[in-house]
Amino acid sequence: MTDETRIEITPVGHVEVDESQGLFRLNILQEYRPALKGLGSCTHAIVLWWADRLDSTVDRRGDLVVELPYAPGVRSGVFANRSEALPNPIAITTSYLIDVDEQSGTVDLAWIDAFDGTPILDFKPYLPMSDRVMDAEYPEWLEGFPETMGDTAIFFADPENIAKFS
Amino acid sequence: MTDETRIEITPVGHVEVDESQGLFRLNILQEYRPALKGLGSCTHAIVLWWADRLDSTVDRRGDLVVELPYAPGVRSGVFANRSEALPNPIAITTSYLIDVDEQSGTVDLAWIDAFDGTPILDFKPYLPMSDRVMDAEYPEWLEGFPETMGDTAIFFADPENIAKFS
Repeated sequence: MTDETRIEITPVGHVEVDESQGLFRLNILQEYRPALKGLGSCTHAIVLWWADRLDSTVDRRGDLVVELPYAPGVRSGVFANRSEALPNPIAITTSYLIDVDEQSGTVDLAWIDAFDGTPILDFKPYLPMSDRVMDAEYPEWLEGFPETMGDTAIFFADPENIAKFS
Repeated sequence: MTDETRIEITPVGHVEVDESQGLFRLNILQEYRPALKGLGSCTHAIVLWWADRLDSTVDRRGDLVVELPYAPGVRSGVFANRSEALPNPIAITTSYLIDVDEQSGTVDLAWIDAFDGTPILDFKPYLPMSDRVMDAEYPEWLEGFPETMGDTAIFFADPENIAKFS
């Protein structure tokens, strides 16, 4: 392999979002649905999606250092924050699994921060043995925000807190 | 977007591994090094890498349901385990950051389960607010394994436990 390799990937499905209905669904293409077998025994999953559209808070694609909308004045490298302004804009979202239907290829999530129609690249179970870090320290600009994904869900149920991030 | 979209990605660097030296390093290409700015304030990161070579425990690429080497008799969909036999073989590894050098583009990790030379696609800080899940339940085949990444590191320091996974 050389660093010049180009890699071609094909989405395995797409995200369907209707916030007014509380709908956050993954639609998996028929040919990939057998890959969902056994997922029902997991409560959380990690979705890898292709951030092919930018939200208004994201700097121009291609910038390697960006301003953080929720941390005024902080300029941070895109490998040091969760901006979607990435060389390869692969976003990851960990979410609670509400329902998995292998036959229809639908996976209902509690939430996902992707726009309706976003391509899904991959999908993994959340496994505490590899994904739960108890002693992670994080940048100053995250001080005051929740310290677990569950607390974050509660935090953002309050519109005043949503306003801080936009 | 349609589900038929093809996406082209270009590696941002490659993994350098020399287990005999305890070396687990990411080499980031010069053009992307500014993206590391500020990473020093994080203790852990999530590496997205392209699993372009299979380890001997992985089933044939393209299989959507695989046998798990560490759980004899269990057949599980590749979206329900962490097999690299994926439609788009993007693996993610969360690891402790030993050192980040923006100038040389080197990121030293405590560990990564990628082969030497593996292409790196993306790199993110581990943020407890989005990545730490306290109440995740997991499949039966993981019973008896550690419940946090830190405990997993200690667990695999014991050769007897490594043997269980191979």
